[in-house]
Amino acid sequence: MAIFTLLGAGMMGGALCVPLADRGHEVRLVGTHLDGDIIESVRTRRVHPGLSCELPETIVPYAIDQLDAALDGCEVLALGVSSEGVDWACEQLAGRVPAELPVFMITKGMRWDGESLEVFPDVVQRALGAPAAAVAGPCIAGELARRVPSCVVITGRDAVILDRIAALIRTDYYHVWTSTDVVGTEVCAAMKNAYAMGVAFGAGLHARGGGEPGSIAMHNYESAVFAQAIDEMRRIITALGGDANAASGLAGAGDLDVTNNGGRTGRFGRFLGRGLSVDEAIEAMAGATLECLQIIAVMRQATRSLVARGDLPPGSLPLLDHMAEVVLDGAPIDMPFARFFGSAVDGAGV
Amino acid sequence: MAIFTLLGAGMMGGALCVPLADRGHEVRLVGTHLDGDIIESVRTRRVHPGLSCELPETIVPYAIDQLDAALDGCEVLALGVSSEGVDWACEQLAGRVPAELPVFMITKGMRWDGESLEVFPDVVQRALGAPAAAVAGPCIAGELARRVPSCVVITGRDAVILDRIAALIRTDYYHVWTSTDVVGTEVCAAMKNAYAMGVAFGAGLHARGGGEPGSIAMHNYESAVFAQAIDEMRRIITALGGDANAASGLAGAGDLDVTNNGGRTGRFGRFLGRGLSVDEAIEAMAGATLECLQIIAVMRQATRSLVARGDLPPGSLPLLDHMAEVVLDGAPIDMPFARFFGSAVDGAGV
Repeated sequence: MAIFTLLGAGMMGGALCVPLADRGHEVRLVGTHLDGDIIESVRTRRVHPGLSCELPETIVPYAIDQLDAALDGCEVLALGVSSEGVDWACEQLAGRVPAELPVFMITKGMRWDGESLEVFPDVVQRALGAPAAAVAGPCIAGELARRVPSCVVITGRDAVILDRIAALIRTDYYHVWTSTDVVGTEVCAAMKNAYAMGVAFGAGLHARGGGEPGSIAMHNYESAVFAQAIDEMRRIITALGGDANAASGLAGAGDLDVTNNGGRTGRFGRFLGRGLSVDEAIEAMAGATLECLQIIAVMRQATRSLVARGDLPPGSLPLLDHMAEVVLDGAPIDMPFARFFGSAVDGAGV
Repeated sequence: MAIFTLLGAGMMGGALCVPLADRGHEVRLVGTHLDGDIIESVRTRRVHPGLSCELPETIVPYAIDQLDAALDGCEVLALGVSSEGVDWACEQLAGRVPAELPVFMITKGMRWDGESLEVFPDVVQRALGAPAAAVAGPCIAGELARRVPSCVVITGRDAVILDRIAALIRTDYYHVWTSTDVVGTEVCAAMKNAYAMGVAFGAGLHARGGGEPGSIAMHNYESAVFAQAIDEMRRIITALGGDANAASGLAGAGDLDVTNNGGRTGRFGRFLGRGLSVDEAIEAMAGATLECLQIIAVMRQATRSLVARGDLPPGSLPLLDHMAEVVLDGAPIDMPFARFFGSAVDGAGV
């Protein structure tokens, strides 16, 4: 048994409490200043309103002003804030957590500082001095909270800490692998949100044309975009020095698949495919966090610099470029299939 | 303009006629002895009954007893028979086609002869002496016939012939890449039919438990199986000497995605997940060709030999083994998640 403190009581923070509680750990769920209603609901009814289900009764909810109490004796700190809340979380935690306390990131994303594209575990490790790990892979929070079998990978630079965390959180429905390929794993974790939007364009376009869901729709379109997404994740990982094969594993293909089928980003992409503007689609998704817009904006800046300095061949990410045109410039969807798969004529892996 | 003769007037043979006709080629569609009704319908109404749509009027239907006429002057021969019909087709064609005539395989599959696992282009090339190519990638026939944007890869050992065929069949909706990695591409083309069945178990199990389709279902289960399927395709390709990266491209991840979302095999897997026996599920799919059963039976034989002689580590294909138990032995579905991803703890690509 260990003491886990989770900062951020959103969907995935709440869901992760379930396997932790099932393993008998002491679980302290700390809401941010944005999570007041969630914490109140868990405290009074045990129900997480976003997950629409009861959490195990051993979970102890904390408000943000009780952070010190929640951190007292904590053995693993999990961060479940939004990607935009990572700086805020680091500020809250700086000086409050011992340097040896492992930090387990639920938040996914990357940061561009004008010079380098950094994955979040590295950002947090630098800010807090703590060894940081992160979870990736196909895991819809509402399903994990209902104990649907789920397979994830945790990544970090310290294999001993990864093994320790994996051993603490595994259950017979929450299957955990580890990988020290932080760059490969986290590029996928961040990018799948962008790419799932593009995969979903096809279903939206089909509906826009009056088509009904079914076997004959625009699945060929969607699956070509799916394969191109993996191809582009491989190229980004390679440019950043990770192992491209992460793109075909749980964090890449697995999470791309689940995000398209059950995630918010897939729904957002379908709205855009149906012809809604970005603003209309955001309105239709009232309340949902849209990490895809954040990562596409980050990547537009980053890839321009990576290309300019020769770390990424020009034109190698036509899908990502087109998605940026659609959501940042308001361009109509016109998938550049003919530019897919680089110049991979007679190449393997097409 | 070239003369294309297609032997086999099933769904994909019929669909491929559409881009060929749109490119202005002379297209001769030859029905097998099983395709009499299809040829009659195309002749009298221009409608392909399986595709439920009209074919371009320039397509000329032929009955099997008109094969000689259909082959006269033919420049590319396309084979669209079922995987079980490949021997029959080779018998029909032997001695009738010149050795230099390129054969373009629409049929997907592999053959185990007790010694080696052979991809179909190699089987046909040996039987006919002709240079064989094959098409792979996410392409539902009914969508291609309706000109939905589709991306495919054609594979063969002769790059010049591949480029020639690709240049002849490309249209602005049928995007064609080439690859000389025949083993990698064709292992994916064959295996995705098996693996799509396993991915679909999750949706069936969810329905069996009374669940409705939606965001919170068993998507985590499905996507973990999806990632494992790519992992296993990589291992099979490697054992057979191909390039494992094909598994993350159009032929692998792309076709797995489309087969699960819009293909017959996905529907079959969902029936099994709902609790139907194999016989009941086959009955529910009346008339559909189930290539997944054929390839799973082939692979059970083949992998046992490959493991026995050390070409494949034991236990490296737990998903395929379990699918064989389900469809060949009648075992209940009990996904072996804990044995997924080999012993890839701290390995890349999980």
